Parts: sequence; structure tokens; C-alpha cells
Amino acid sequence: MTGRQLHLNLFVYPGGHHEAAWRYHGSDVERILDIGYYQDLARRAEAAAFDGVFFADGPALPDNVRYAGRFRLEPFTWLSAIAAATERIGLIATASTTYFEPYNLARLFASLDHLSRGRAGWNIVTTGAPQAAANFGLDAHPAHAERYERAGEFLDVVTRLWDSWEDEALVADQKTGVFADTDRIHTIDHEGPRLKVRGPLNTPRTPQGRPVYVQAGSSEDGRAFAARYAEAVFTAHQTLASGQAFYADLKARVAAAGRDPGQVLILPGISPFIGSTEAEARALHEEFNELIQPAYSLQQLHRVLGLELDEEALDGPVPRELVDTGGERGNGSRFQVVLDIIDRERPTVRQLLHRLAGARGHRVVVGTPEQIADQLQEWFVSGAADGFNVMPPWLTGGFDLFADHVVPILRDRGLFRTEYTGTTLRDHYGLPRPDSQYAHRD
Amino acid sequence: MTGRQLHLNLFVYPGGHHEAAWRYHGSDVERILDIGYYQDLARRAEAAAFDGVFFADGPALPDNVRYAGRFRLEPFTWLSAIAAATERIGLIATASTTYFEPYNLARLFASLDHLSRGRAGWNIVTTGAPQAAANFGLDAHPAHAERYERAGEFLDVVTRLWDSWEDEALVADQKTGVFADTDRIHTIDHEGPRLKVRGPLNTPRTPQGRPVYVQAGSSEDGRAFAARYAEAVFTAHQTLASGQAFYADLKARVAAAGRDPGQVLILPGISPFIGSTEAEARALHEEFNELIQPAYSLQQLHRVLGLELDEEALDGPVPRELVDTGGERGNGSRFQVVLDIIDRERPTVRQLLHRLAGARGHRVVVGTPEQIADQLQEWFVSGAADGFNVMPPWLTGGFDLFADHVVPILRDRGLFRTEYTGTTLRDHYGLPRPDSQYAHRD
Repeated sequence: MTGRQLHLNLFVYPGGHHEAAWRYHGSDVERILDIGYYQDLARRAEAAAFDGVFFADGPALPDNVRYAGRFRLEPFTWLSAIAAATERIGLIATASTTYFEPYNLARLFASLDHLSRGRAGWNIVTTGAPQAAANFGLDAHPAHAERYERAGEFLDVVTRLWDSWEDEALVADQKTGVFADTDRIHTIDHEGPRLKVRGPLNTPRTPQGRPVYVQAGSSEDGRAFAARYAEAVFTAHQTLASGQAFYADLKARVAAAGRDPGQVLILPGISPFIGSTEAEARALHEEFNELIQPAYSLQQLHRVLGLELDEEALDGPVPRELVDTGGERGNGSRFQVVLDIIDRERPTVRQLLHRLAGARGHRVVVGTPEQIADQLQEWFVSGAADGFNVMPPWLTGGFDLFADHVVPILRDRGLFRTEYTGTTLRDHYGLPRPDSQYAHRD
Repeated sequence: MTGRQLHLNLFVYPGGHHEAAWRYHGSDVERILDIGYYQDLARRAEAAAFDGVFFADGPALPDNVRYAGRFRLEPFTWLSAIAAATERIGLIATASTTYFEPYNLARLFASLDHLSRGRAGWNIVTTGAPQAAANFGLDAHPAHAERYERAGEFLDVVTRLWDSWEDEALVADQKTGVFADTDRIHTIDHEGPRLKVRGPLNTPRTPQGRPVYVQAGSSEDGRAFAARYAEAVFTAHQTLASGQAFYADLKARVAAAGRDPGQVLILPGISPFIGSTEAEARALHEEFNELIQPAYSLQQLHRVLGLELDEEALDGPVPRELVDTGGERGNGSRFQVVLDIIDRERPTVRQLLHRLAGARGHRVVVGTPEQIADQLQEWFVSGAADGFNVMPPWLTGGFDLFADHVVPILRDRGLFRTEYTGTTLRDHYGLPRPDSQYAHRD
């Protein structure tokens, strides 16, 4: 089995990805603050030889936690504790270029990469939630374009910080008394429009050199950013055609930026409802939809589309003409996904809420293990995906079904590894370890 | 055994606390970036029923790493991985109020407290190293007084963030669909001279409510700060008289601030060289001193005292009249400790370097286990200490000697626990769990 292999991450979300997951009897809601629950999940994903576990994040409390399990687990601490309970699986933390100081963020990732022996990945976000600004002394959330400008400068800064100790800088020769070769440790002396950082970093270079750069924005700015920096891209698509178009566009942009398109993996999200028959899977999906609380879902819809609707509107058509397409909102990639659903499927409001409750705009697939595997394979072989970010509707059971029933089929078809062949996230993703840009040419 | 018990922390430093520890044949220098080495250390300290492990930190690379193992382990990630390998021992992270955003820091500690089930402590520092400023876009390191003003405001902000979810706010009732009681989650709406933070925090309240507040500055500003906020104080004293004076002063300040002096533990640093005879202990100490590199030590002396000396000066007296007592330096508590040594002992430059190499100004004790225990007991019973921050000259062996030979003597004398009686760091320190300041009075 030497053909092209797909990559699989487990996207971890407290309770699970369905909006009402925490209400499902199979979800371990009493354990959602227990690190052991997340360590168990990561161990299961590692037993299935998944590439990585992935944690979303944002530095603010979402608007309405009354009805949904929307608190936040701080990813660096959480993943460090998970690293201690696992050996191989990659550890991908979301962190904001808008609301971190680059020196602090560079240290957190360097340390995570050291302590996990090379398993750190960074999901680079600029933070979309406007309520974050008020937690950081800002009167207003910076505009989309401004956030991306800072993100580019931020990436250059932290990359140089991670490179600031060359690999050979740590000597630790007890006899000569030389601890570090200071000729191989460099200040970065960055003075840009938004950031000023001298360096060097205060830790030796890490096993992977840098964390794997992951990115998830699909807006125009987001794609341009991904083309320049990303090594893996998380994305949301409802249809094969949309996935293919995005895949082709991004790979072309990567090539145009002078990079190898094979070294940028495109990983759409997928939320699988699995049953031993299709009917059983549909019944399971329906069981989740019945747990939805419309008051909450309508508020989510308002956030994404600007539509203010009440419960009396649930069984009428979505009033497409009232969708607010202006301003910041129109830039968001999730906005476009939802608009496409409305235009394509002409759903009632309730149907739309059910569509979105599954995985916040990511693709929901409902069927038997064979049917799910068929879907993944189709996207993988027809130019829409290099792998998937798996978003189980509930945890941990929803992941176990995938690992126990879908993964073996993918293996039988030669599409997914049976065991790890390397030790770092870069190894799993087939990405090279970058040299330090300061490396001496002796 | 119900008498007053002393408290012991293990202060972890890569390789050990003696300046030349990394060169000592017994130090595991090849493991100083290996999380397993630190997890082993914490497990040993836990087996000895120590109150906590403690990590220093600073967001900059110290000036000279050529001769000394002075890189930095990022404490939040490192302690999270240690939490996963231990059950009971406290986890104390140093973090700067000058170079963190309060919202980010509040999240990191809340998460560490959740994942350790209530073992987090915060060593609150304002960061003394001036080179940090250039890593955060500042033209100059903020002055001492200015840093402490920000620190006070910062403490009020993060305390309110940790209190912003009342204990009962997390409901997670699957039947009613109420995840959180939003009447018990509060914005903090802070608008102060230096910080503006709305909140609430994005995570439920933690097992300890807040991390234990630890503080280490002994300057005038530092003492005033400790009197108001600290629950444990790390401090450096060379003589019993100095330790007693500090202890009496700080406890009086705590009482004057309207707080219970019994709930502020004073824990001087102590670095023990242990031998089965006094001669053996002295020989061990001498062995370390021979590993010192004067070029490095003189640079350290320059940093602390402003004295520029070269190797030819080593065997002459310390030129006390050239010490620079002006400016920022004179505020530092370490400065005063070193000045006292010079005035009291009239050492040669080399002797002074040896005195300081042990533990950067902390007290070094050299002797048999009985002699070390006598010293600890004397300070404990005569109003100089509630316990100690143990700083082994080298790791891990230097700690093992203390745990295996000194701790049993302390136990025989009824001075130290034989096992944990609680599960949180607050339990170990005998500190109460604070109520949220927003708690409803139903």
C-alpha cells in the first residue's frame, strides 16, 4: 500500500459538534471539564492512527451560553496535558494573531513542541468574534483586512523567533563549559508597522523547528494568507463542487506563490452520523435535531446572517431578501456557505436550523459506514480533499463509531495508514522540517 | 502530631540551582529539555508530600547563555504536562503582570487549575529583566513603581475574571436544556488607568476559585503588594536576623491591611549541600565552586551591583565604594542581599562569586541532614519562616538527598506531614477557597 493516503484529524469540542450534543444521553456532559475525558479521546484517536487532535479557540465568551456548551478550553494547557497522555498524535491549537503578543505565543508553541517531542500544530486565526476586543482594551474589533495585515507581520515575527536558535546552538558541553554557541543565537530585530520585537526566543529550537502552520479562513484575505503560509487548511464545504473549486483555487494560489502544492493539505470538516443501516443513521440524526432549542439556534442564525426571526417563522421559508450581505459579515467564509444552502435547497427556517446545528456550517453526512467511507473517498479522489477534519456529532461515542467502523473500511481500500510511520506531526502530514533561516552555511 | 507544620516547595530549575549545576557530572544535562525529567522530579516531590513545585520565568533570553543553562521553560505548558503525571502536588507558575494581557493570563491559570483539579499557584512578578521590553515593542522597560501600579490593577482585573462565573453558574441540565445560568455569569466592566477589560471569562469557575497568589518581591513596593494580595511569599535571606525582620515586617503589614497573617505563608529559599559528614558536604560544595566560570560570574555581578571587574580582581577585596546604588537597581531586593553579604563578610571577589553561585543570592546551607534540619527548624520556630522553597544545587540527585535524608528528620520532629490531607494547593497551604465576589446572596 503505497498510494496517496488521506489524513484525518479529530476536531475536539466539549460534548461534541452538534449544537445540542451536550443534551444527548450518550454525551459525557458531566466530564466536559475533566482533562481525563479529553486524554481518553486523544488516546482513542491515537489508537486509530489519526494525524492529530484539533482544538478551536477564541478569547471571549460566546454570546449565549444559556443553551449551549460554549465555554472555552484553553488549548495550550489542555494540549500539554494531552501530550503527556499520548506518544504520537499531533496536537493542533488555535491561537489568535490579533489577541496574543507574538513573543508569548512563540514561547507557548515552542514549549508545546518540545514537551510533545514535535507534535505541535498552530491553527492560525485572526479571531472573528467581535466581543473579544472588549477583553483586550480595544474600543472596536479590528477590521478584517487590518487583522490579516497584522497576521502576516505576526507570522514573520514568530517564524523568526522559532528560527532564532539554530539547531546546533545548544551545546551543553560539560567539559569546556560552553552551554550555548551564542554565534548561533540571533536577535530578530523586527521593526514593522504593527510589531516591534527584538528576540531571540528564550528556548532552544524545537523538534519540528516550527509548529505546523494550519489555517482556516476561506475569505479572499484568508486564501491569500493560506497560499503564503499554510501547510494545512481546514475548510467548510457542503457540496463536492464547492470543495473541488476551493481545492483547485487554493492549490493554484500556492503554486503561484512559489510553493509546492503537495505541501499544503486541504482538510474539509465532516460530521458523520453513522448507523448500521441508513434508516438507523437518519433516526439518530433526527434524535439530535429534536434536542435543538430554537431560541438558541435563531440567535446563531442572526449572528451569521443578520436575520432576526422568531419561533413563529420556523415553518416558513427563509426570507432570503432580508439577509444582510453588507459589511464585515459578507467577508466571512461561513456566511457564504449558509447563503449557498439557502439558494440551493430553499429550506424552511426550521430545516435550515437543522442543517446548521450539525456542525456550524460544516458538512454533515448521514449513513452506514460504507456510505460514509464512499463519501470520503469520493472527495479524496476527485480533487476536493487531502483528508478530513472529523467532527463527531457527540463525544466520545460518535468518534468511536467512526474509528471502529469507518476507519477499517478506509484501510481496506488502502486509503489510510494502519500505523504511524513517523513521530512528529510533520511526519504524519508528510511535511519537511524547515531549516532555520539563520542557519550558518559552514 | 497536630502542631504547626512547615511547608516545602521544590523550586525547579533546569539542571539545578547552582550556577554551574549543568556542568556537574551528577546533573542530567542531556535531559534538560525532556519533559519526562521534570515529570520525574515532580513525582519525587509528590512522593515526599511536598506542597508544590515552582517554576521561575521571564519573557526574554538572559544576557549570557554561553556559560550557563539559562534558557526558559514556558511554565503553563510545562506544568500542564506535569499535572498529567501527578495527582496531588501544587503547580506554581511564574507569570508577568507587565508582559501578559490579563484576559490571556486569566485563561491560562483557570485552565491549569481545572486540569490539575485545583493545584495551580501564581507567582506574581512584574519582570525585572529590562531586555524583556524589546520583545514586546516597548522602547524602555517600565519603571519599578509603574510596573507595580499596573500589577495592582492587573490583580483586580484577573481576580474579577476568575470570579465572573459563580460556582453555581454551570448547570448542564440535559432535560431543561439550560447549560449555564447566565444570571450567575458577570461582565466585569473594568475601566482603569491602564487596563480595560469587559469579561466575563470564557470558562466556568475553577476548583480553587483562583490560583494561590504567590509573590516574591521584597522591595518596598513588593512588600506593600504582598501585604495586599499574597497568600505565600518567596524571599531570599542570608541570616536568621534578616529573615526574622522580614517575617515580622510582612506579617505586620498583612495585619494592617486587614488580612489574617496566618494566611500569608513566608517561604525563604534554601539551597542545601548535603553530606553524610560535614566534611563531605563541604567537599561537595567545593566541587561545585570549582566548576564556576569567572567570566560568567563577573557578568552576573555586574548585572546585580553595576561593578565592572575582570579576572585579575578575583583575589582582591570587593570594591564596595564602586557599587552603583543609584536608580532602578537600588530598588531590587536581591541587590540589598548582596550588599549585606559584602558589608558583613568582607569577601574577596572570588569568595563573593562563590557565595552567589549557589542560588543567586538565596541562602546556601552546607552540612549533614541533621544540621540542615536544625537550620530549617530554627528558622521555622523563631519567626523567620513558615516553610521553605527548596532549591537543590543540582537535579535530580540534589533533591533526592533532601527528600531521602532531611525530610524524614523533619517528620520525626513532627514538623512536616507524612502524607497529604487534602487535594488542592490551597488545602496543602491551609488556605481557604475564596467565594466569588459576585456570589448571589439568595
